Formats: sequence, C-alpha cells, structure tokens
Amino acid sequence: MAATEPIQPGNQTPENSHTEAQLISGTKIAADYRNELRVDVEQWVKAGHRRPHLVAILVGEDPASQKYVHNKMLAAKDVGIDSETLKLPATASEKEILAKIDELNKNPNVDGILVQLPVPQHVNERNVCNAVDPRKDVDGFHIINVGKMTLNMDTFVPATALGVIELLKRMNVDTKGKNVVICGRSKNVGLPMAMLLHSDHRNELPGMEATVVLCHRHTPPEELAYFAKRADIIISATGVVGLIKPEIVKPGAVVIDVGINRITTKEGKTKLVGDVDFEGVRKVAGFITPVPGGVGPMTVAMLMHNTYKAAVQLAKQEIYS
Amino acid sequence: MAATEPIQPGNQTPENSHTEAQLISGTKIAADYRNELRVDVEQWVKAGHRRPHLVAILVGEDPASQKYVHNKMLAAKDVGIDSETLKLPATASEKEILAKIDELNKNPNVDGILVQLPVPQHVNERNVCNAVDPRKDVDGFHIINVGKMTLNMDTFVPATALGVIELLKRMNVDTKGKNVVICGRSKNVGLPMAMLLHSDHRNELPGMEATVVLCHRHTPPEELAYFAKRADIIISATGVVGLIKPEIVKPGAVVIDVGINRITTKEGKTKLVGDVDFEGVRKVAGFITPVPGGVGPMTVAMLMHNTYKAAVQLAKQEIYS
Repeated sequence: MAATEPIQPGNQTPENSHTEAQLISGTKIAADYRNELRVDVEQWVKAGHRRPHLVAILVGEDPASQKYVHNKMLAAKDVGIDSETLKLPATASEKEILAKIDELNKNPNVDGILVQLPVPQHVNERNVCNAVDPRKDVDGFHIINVGKMTLNMDTFVPATALGVIELLKRMNVDTKGKNVVICGRSKNVGLPMAMLLHSDHRNELPGMEATVVLCHRHTPPEELAYFAKRADIIISATGVVGLIKPEIVKPGAVVIDVGINRITTKEGKTKLVGDVDFEGVRKVAGFITPVPGGVGPMTVAMLMHNTYKAAVQLAKQEIYS
Repeated sequence: MAATEPIQPGNQTPENSHTEAQLISGTKIAADYRNELRVDVEQWVKAGHRRPHLVAILVGEDPASQKYVHNKMLAAKDVGIDSETLKLPATASEKEILAKIDELNKNPNVDGILVQLPVPQHVNERNVCNAVDPRKDVDGFHIINVGKMTLNMDTFVPATALGVIELLKRMNVDTKGKNVVICGRSKNVGLPMAMLLHSDHRNELPGMEATVVLCHRHTPPEELAYFAKRADIIISATGVVGLIKPEIVKPGAVVIDVGINRITTKEGKTKLVGDVDFEGVRKVAGFITPVPGGVGPMTVAMLMHNTYKAAVQLAKQEIYS
C-alpha cells in the first residue's frame, strides 16, 4: 500500500481534489505486519531460541476486558508467540497482584507481562504498572519507560500510539515540518503520539519532526476548528462522536480516527463509530482510517511487536543472576 | 503584582488596547519568591531540622558553567540553604563522577545534588543524570522524574520550566482552555512546559488545561505565524534572535521570553537579548518579560524551591537504613 514517493499530507493535488479520500486499511496493514512478524518469530525459534512468551494478568470479570485479553491471546497464537492469561478474582488485593507480577518478573520463561486495565478500584493502578519489570513492560506503562519515551529513547511505546505511528509509516506519510493536530491527551494514546510526532531525529527513536497541537476537552470548538483547518494530519482519540467534521478538515489531510464509540442507529441497531464524521470527512480528506478496521487492528499487532522485541532484548541480557 | 481577577491572556480590552504591554519583572517576582522561601527555611531550621544542603558537581573549567554554579551558590546562601561546589577535572572519568554522585546519594547531610551540564564529551550525560538519587534530583533530569512529570505526578520540575509556570501563576494568568504556543522542544525547557501547560487538573500537579502548540526548528515560519497569531500565551525558548515579531503576536497576549542570546550592537557592544523583538512586541502584547530580568532570575529561585522541597521530603523518609 505504501507509495514510492512520500505522501505530502494536506497537499491537495489535481489528482486528489475531486476524489474521495483513500482508505487506510488498518485491517490490511495489521495483517501484513503480523505476517512479517510471524516470519521473524519463526526464524528466531529456528535459531535455537525459546518461543517468545506473553502473560496477561486479568483481574475480575469485566466482559470488555475479557474480550480484549482474549483477542490478544488469539493474535499471539497467530504470530507464533506463546501466551497465557492469569485470572485473579476482583477481590484480589494489591499485594497479591504485585506478588504475582514479581513472580513473572523473575520467571526466565516470560518475556512480556501486561496487566489488563482498569484494575479494581481498591488497587493502585500506578503501583501495578511500576511493578512490572521495565524490560518486560510490553504495554509501556512503567514510569521508566514513560520517561524514556519522553526523552525519545528507545523503549516500549504504548501499543495504540505505536499503531498510529506505524500506519503513518506504512502509508509513507511525510511528517517533517507538517502540522499535526492531536485530540485527546491521555497518557496511553494522545500524549505518546505527541511525543513521537514532534520528536527530533537526532535522538534514539526515529524523529518525526512535526509541529504538534495538543487539543483536549478544554479546547473550545472554534479553536479546534482553527487548528484543524491548518492540520496536514488530524488524529482523534477522544470518544466524542462527530468531533471531526468535514468543515474543519483541510483538503488532502490525513485523518486518523482512534475513537471507538458504540452508538444506536435510528433502526435501533448498535454500531461502532469513531470520533470522525466518516461520510462527510472522506469527501475532503486525502486519506482516512475507517472505524472499525482502522487503528483497532494495529493495537494488537503492536503489542505483539513489543513482546517479540522484549524477547530478543532479554535473550541478549543476563538478568536472572 | 498579582491581579485580583485572573488575567485573560489575549483579550484585548479598551483599557489595554492603546497602551504598551505591562512588564513582567522576573527580577521582582524572583526576589519576592526568595524572600518567602527564606522565611520557610528559617522556620524549618527553627523547628529543629538541619539546614537544607545543596551540592553542585562541576566537571571541568568551562567559564559559563563556573558562573552558573557560582550564581546558584549565591542564591542558596541568600535563602539560607547550605551549599558547596565539588570541582572535578575535565579529565575525570564517568566512573569517577558516578562514584562521587553515589557518595552524595548516601550522605544523609545532602538534600539536593546537581551536576552542571554539559559534562565533557567522554561522559554519558544520561548516565550521570540517572545516577542521582531521584529524591535528591533537584534539576529534575532523572528518568523517573521525567516519567513522573509526563504522568503529571508530583516531582521535581526542571527549574527554568518551573520558573515560567511560577511567573504565569504569580501574574494570575488564566490558562484553562487558552492557546499556548511554545517554541522549542528541549527536554529541559520546552517539553516540560508543554507537559505542565496541557495538564489535566485531575492529576497530582496543578492542571493548567491549556491547548498547547509545540513548535520547533522544523516549523515553517508561516505556520508559526498562523499559530502565534491565535496564541493567548507565547513562550519562546529557542535561541533564535527576533523569532517572535510584533506582526505574529495577538493583541493582549502574554509573551514569555526564555531565550538568552548575546549579540553585538552597531556600536560594537555586547548585549543580551531574548528571542522576542522586545521593542516591537511590547506595543502589541498585554504582558511581556524582558531579557535580562525576566525568566532568568526565576530559574535559580526555582532550583532553591526544589532543594527546600527535597529537604522536607527527605526528612519525612528514612532512606539511610
């Protein structure tokens, strides 16, 4: 899908000015990515290494969390990564959870550890994130990995943010000196994207060199419109249905929709939609991700990327002395 | 100097539309701050505590570094903080520097440790920053403190960035939902300001809730102009003389100049100027910091704030078991 020449986002050309936006198929790109990763994993195993191993800790019975973890296990299997889910009751104490994490940290057969969030209210989420060995922290939530990301050092980047970056790379979108509007400042999605997109190429992470506008719930609509109209790339991760309307999108822009919202149609059916007015914006934008089938599939693929990366890095270190 | 009603940056009113910008005197605000801190320190000592103690490590003979450290020592003395400078030769190995830091980490009579940057080229700056005990890291450069800042947890914020924030607070400038343009993405100044200014009030650090535009060397001038013209607050930390011109400043805006640049005048004299075309911009802006006498004096005051904070926090912990 990648073009030979970099895509200049927000450049309306005679070729694209009267056509609909090109769809960015996360489904297709994630499948490509997983196919490549499967080959890497098999080569790794053939070279005599243990198969990478991911453990998810699931506390409680939340159906959405169960489904997310289940999908991660399926994706692991698909690319040849061993995986298991450790289930703890919703009544598990923080101490019990931390003890379980400590056990996995010390287990030389485990490469990646993730604790499915949210954890029950009586558990301090930050303590749990910081308990995971940073070298096995495939979610990238440990404070040291957050610090590394801020300093643009090589680290585990949270999967959804990394998925968006990978989509832009695979579409060969030029970001240097471009304007990027990010809607949503969450620590796991919006903020990491801001960190990566403004980054200097002189650091360890690939510098993307964009000017970044970070918008959020306190950005007035008319201000968002002012910034969005000038944006070569718009990334929305807010959960606000219809936030990105066609009249605030620059012709030719790349629009990435991270929102996943469940709405009820006039016919009473449940439907998944993003933050972007898809039907309207596709008539203006140059490139657009659908929901579902856009960023969603990339998240799980990037988690697998992080797990494989952890396995390779751990194999080079002797951490169980 | 603080107004009773919050200042609404970028709101041109009949009162300010024909007048020059009000000067934000960092010299005055820093002096006020130090006077208050001096009282706090004396009360702390009177309550039976050891006087706070700051140690600066100075590697090599760089005259600018020597001067910076000297000024920090003077400021410490002024507010009643004990201080000393450990001088190491430019040939000191990284190992020697780390050993010295380790010694200070373990010394129960030391509260704050700073290593004056830059260190000589044969020394890894990141290793040095990460060697300082995060609880004594008054520069806020340790990776854990960078992570905390990114997560808007209470931590040591790098002094210049904290100084800008303190200026805005003391001037009672409203930031919620305002547009802030930050020029410069350095890890010690521009980026920390972006972190603090966009922050959510639901976290540990006081949320400032601004929309933040992060510009840098790859932001084209016409794009900077587009963003700056809409900015209620402009903060420039680039070292580019004359970057902020009057024609890109919104009437009534608050303009904070972090740049310190040495230029030669037509008369052949050396002069300190900032990034802002001061004479031009003061006719448009509502509030403006001069150079010198703006952000500069705040930096050293905030370092003293961090040292006192470290002393108080350390006294509550038993870390030398």
